[in-house]
Amino acid sequence: MPPTLTDIQQAARRIKPYAHRTPVITNESLNQQVSARMYLKCENFQKVGAFKFRGACNAVFSLSEEEAARGVCTHSSGNHAQALALAAKLRGISAYIVMPYNAPSVKKNAVAGYGSQITFCEPTLEARESMLDRIRLDTGASVVHPYNDERVIAGQGTAALELLEDVPDLDVIITPVGGGGLLSGTSIAATETKRGIRVIAGEPEMADDAYRSMKAGEIIPSVNPKTIADGLLTSLGTITFPIIQERVEQIVTVSEAGIIASMKFIWERAKIVIEPSAAVAVGVLWEKKIDLHGLKVGVILSGGNVDLEKMPWQY
Amino acid sequence: MPPTLTDIQQAARRIKPYAHRTPVITNESLNQQVSARMYLKCENFQKVGAFKFRGACNAVFSLSEEEAARGVCTHSSGNHAQALALAAKLRGISAYIVMPYNAPSVKKNAVAGYGSQITFCEPTLEARESMLDRIRLDTGASVVHPYNDERVIAGQGTAALELLEDVPDLDVIITPVGGGGLLSGTSIAATETKRGIRVIAGEPEMADDAYRSMKAGEIIPSVNPKTIADGLLTSLGTITFPIIQERVEQIVTVSEAGIIASMKFIWERAKIVIEPSAAVAVGVLWEKKIDLHGLKVGVILSGGNVDLEKMPWQY
Repeated sequence: MPPTLTDIQQAARRIKPYAHRTPVITNESLNQQVSARMYLKCENFQKVGAFKFRGACNAVFSLSEEEAARGVCTHSSGNHAQALALAAKLRGISAYIVMPYNAPSVKKNAVAGYGSQITFCEPTLEARESMLDRIRLDTGASVVHPYNDERVIAGQGTAALELLEDVPDLDVIITPVGGGGLLSGTSIAATETKRGIRVIAGEPEMADDAYRSMKAGEIIPSVNPKTIADGLLTSLGTITFPIIQERVEQIVTVSEAGIIASMKFIWERAKIVIEPSAAVAVGVLWEKKIDLHGLKVGVILSGGNVDLEKMPWQY
Repeated sequence: MPPTLTDIQQAARRIKPYAHRTPVITNESLNQQVSARMYLKCENFQKVGAFKFRGACNAVFSLSEEEAARGVCTHSSGNHAQALALAAKLRGISAYIVMPYNAPSVKKNAVAGYGSQITFCEPTLEARESMLDRIRLDTGASVVHPYNDERVIAGQGTAALELLEDVPDLDVIITPVGGGGLLSGTSIAATETKRGIRVIAGEPEMADDAYRSMKAGEIIPSVNPKTIADGLLTSLGTITFPIIQERVEQIVTVSEAGIIASMKFIWERAKIVIEPSAAVAVGVLWEKKIDLHGLKVGVILSGGNVDLEKMPWQY
């Protein structure tokens, strides 16, 4: 069963003591640039620097005492690993994180810094899944998938709930799409809260599996995606896809140049650090592939975790 | 006569319709890093991306109708030029800006974009001043100096007023110091509002004229300063220096490495874009040259205007 609005509202209450209520900002130059009124929900200011904390936190605090005592586990090389590690730390339970041995050391250190136990494996999906399976069997820990999990989806939906509380008369809400956790949670929260609101996703042209899946009416896996938006490489899940099919108007693809230009503009004008995946959602308006002229558009800026040593506009 | 608290309070009312009330943010990682509780006043989110808008706006809206009709003028290659240009535009009057011909084109474009008349000159102080003098005589425009002007000082002091409204129990308040407009305005606002509050300034080691001026008891001009904090190259003024002597506890110098490390940390952890001059104020705590352990420290992040093509940590 996909999460309901009630599930998302419960998630909001559950994570409230732990998650930041992030601000919604506006920027006049951006509005002029894209000919729309944009409301940016700053999940780059969220704990661990990304919306992922919401879903992980909801999952961890949904566990019964008995389940929680055995801990949680996942495989991830990205923001979800940090999010789950922090949520587990906050509940005072164990987290077992499987990471590819070649993950960036800054991410390994962050996960280790929250007191999680990291197991390294070969950087293939098969190796990651079989290692996770072994840990689950050994420890009895609950698996928390980064997006194909109802508790995670409900948690991610809380950002849209807050955004609509702050700006109730939005015409459109846009998120980036990778595995679809944020998008599916947002689409439930938005369409159940406000009749007629349009939910749109931005996806990198170079990783357009969700776009193709929507066209095909079935999940088309992502094959060797290459995009600067490294948070959006994954394929849709069996739980997220049907929700997206039902509630999302369309998926708009954004070029690498559009992602980089949007990201740079936000840094320069709004003076906030966003990651390329967040810029993909802005890029939907930037490239003007769809007409949102004059509308009130909410955008969920998914996160702000970037490697400052590698600025994409310098290449 | 130096501005009084009343002047600053009047300035606050005068600029309120035009300036942003910028947020004050906190960051747990930063607090741990510097062993103090820091409150960051985000003037990087101010109009034109810097606190300079406050002073320019107060000066422009202080003019009588008759004065205003003749316009305003200044020489500047930096944030003050943009600030004055925007303030003049908002009042609907002329602004005449003298800029060195070799100023970055992004700054020229920004000033021109606000509808100001730019006159270019040789990049020397003499050329700038004589050109400004000619324009003043030709047009009757009022000169608005970037810092050695009571109206500007009062305007800059409004940031500290807001910070102390939001966090009344600060122990210390820190700003960067260049010409001393922000520092002198802050020192009046802070010490007149809260008895016993300590006002401290951060200054680049490589442009330490204010530090030396305080030691010497007279203004020591800046000679060929070379620092990444390009907003802090100027010398103190005849109006700002006595205020600083009277009200500022000390000026702490910060190394270039300390400036860069502080700036990078704020970008990475707080996810906001600040300019090197703003990082100088954070650098006071970063390098732990003075003991502020456990104190509540307000820092005015002066601005966020940086050239994203040149990241200092990449050299």
